Amino acid sequence: MLSIDIVTLFPGFFKSSLAESLLKKAQERNLVKIQARNLRDWTHDRHKTADDKPFGGGPGMVLKPEPLFECVEAIRRRGTCVVLMDPQGEPMTQALARELVKKKHLIVIAGHYEGVDQRVKDHLIDREISIGDFITMGGEAPALCLIEALVRLVPGALGNKDSAEHESFENGMLEHPHYTRPREYRGWKVPDVLVSGNHKDLEAWRKRTAEQMTKKKRPDLFKRNKKSGPKRTRQGSQKKTTSGKD
Amino acid sequence: MLSIDIVTLFPGFFKSSLAESLLKKAQERNLVKIQARNLRDWTHDRHKTADDKPFGGGPGMVLKPEPLFECVEAIRRRGTCVVLMDPQGEPMTQALARELVKKKHLIVIAGHYEGVDQRVKDHLIDREISIGDFITMGGEAPALCLIEALVRLVPGALGNKDSAEHESFENGMLEHPHYTRPREYRGWKVPDVLVSGNHKDLEAWRKRTAEQMTKKKRPDLFKRNKKSGPKRTRQGSQKKTTSGKD
Repeated sequence: MLSIDIVTLFPGFFKSSLAESLLKKAQERNLVKIQARNLRDWTHDRHKTADDKPFGGGPGMVLKPEPLFECVEAIRRRGTCVVLMDPQGEPMTQALARELVKKKHLIVIAGHYEGVDQRVKDHLIDREISIGDFITMGGEAPALCLIEALVRLVPGALGNKDSAEHESFENGMLEHPHYTRPREYRGWKVPDVLVSGNHKDLEAWRKRTAEQMTKKKRPDLFKRNKKSGPKRTRQGSQKKTTSGKD
Repeated sequence: MLSIDIVTLFPGFFKSSLAESLLKKAQERNLVKIQARNLRDWTHDRHKTADDKPFGGGPGMVLKPEPLFECVEAIRRRGTCVVLMDPQGEPMTQALARELVKKKHLIVIAGHYEGVDQRVKDHLIDREISIGDFITMGGEAPALCLIEALVRLVPGALGNKDSAEHESFENGMLEHPHYTRPREYRGWKVPDVLVSGNHKDLEAWRKRTAEQMTKKKRPDLFKRNKKSGPKRTRQGSQKKTTSGKD
C-alpha cells in the first residue's frame, strides 16, 4: 500500500480535501494511507518556531533546517522517498507521477513557497518538485496536486479501471475533444463521426484532432513528441461507441 | 475587491483549505471573496446528473454542457472572466497570475480532469488553464493553486508587503538559495557572503547563484531569459542584512 506523509505548517488545510471524492474512497479501500504531519511538533521552543528571516536580508520567511531534519528522520523508513514541493524543483509531469507511485512511502514537504533553508535541499530531500512556473502561498496546494496525480494511478483508485490510461500526456499529446449528451445543444451539434459507429473513422478523427489541438495549443509538446508519434492504438477496439443511445 | 466563484462537483473539498492560513486572512480582511458553488445546483433531474459518458466511447465521464452553461450564466456579471481548469489549457505562469488578478470577478470551473464537453470550451469560457503536464483527479486542487497564486498578489494579502515581489519567475530565473539560522547546522555552514554585511558582494552572489541554479535545473528557462537578463537591482538596497544577529 502506498503511504504518504505530508509535512506542513497547516495540517488542517488538508482535512476536507482528503475527505472528499476519490481521495476519500481510495483511503477507505486501503489503497493509500495519507497523513498530514504538523511540522511544529518537531520544534522545541515555546513559540514552536519553524521559520526565520533569511540571512542576507530579503522578504518573507525561510523554513529552518532543524524541525525538518528531525521530522523527516522520525518518520522515514527504508526506501522512503522525500519530496520537497518547491517552485525551484523539477517540473511535475505524468512520467514523474508514474515513477513516484511505485514507491512504498513518500514524505511530501509542503514548504513556504518563499523558501526553505538550502541545507534541507542539499542534505535531506531526494526530489524537489515544482508544479509550475508560478508561486502559490505555500506548498500545500501543490502537494495536493501531486498526491492526486499519484493516487489516481493506484490500481483500483478510479472507478473505471481504464480511466488512468488513455489521457493527455501519456503519449505526449493533448487529448482529442470530448462530447457527451445532448447530441445538439443550442444549435451546436456533436461531430457526426462520433455517432457514426465507424471505429476506423472515429480513431482517425481522434488522432487528427489530438494532433491539431496539441499543435495549436502546445507547440512545445507537439514538436517534442511528433517524432515518436502518439500511440493511440488500443482505444477503439476496447469500447463500444455510445451511438444510438442518444 | 477580487471575487472568485469556484464551480465544482465537490464544494466541500475547499472548506478547510479556504479556512486556513493566508487565504483565510485575506478573506477576513475583505481583500478577496471566495465561494464554492455546487454545479449540481444547476441540474434538473432527480439524480442531479452533471456528467455523462463520452460520445464515441472511452473511459471516464464528461461534464455535460447544460449545468455549466446555466451555472455560469446565473453568476457571471459584466467583466467576469470564466476560467476552466483543464490539462489541455495554456500553462499557468506567474505572468498569467499577474494578468488575472486584475479582474474584478473570476469564475473558476474545476472540471473532471477526464473531460468537459467541447461546446463548453468553444462557447462558454474565456480561458482554459493547465497547471502542468500531469493529470489530477479533478480540477479542484489545480483551482486551489490558481487561487493561491492570484490572492497572494492582492496588495495586503501577504503580511510582508515585499513578499509578492522578489520571487522566482518574476524575472524569468529561479531564485538564489535561501539560508536562515542557525549559521552552522551539523557542520554545514551558511556561505560567508551572506553574513559579511557587504551588499555588493551579496547581490553579486545572489545573481550568480540564481543564474547557476536556473542553468542547471531549468535550462529551458535560462535559455529563454538570459538575453533580457534578470532584473535584480532593487533587492539589496531595500533591506538590511541580518548579519550579526546570529
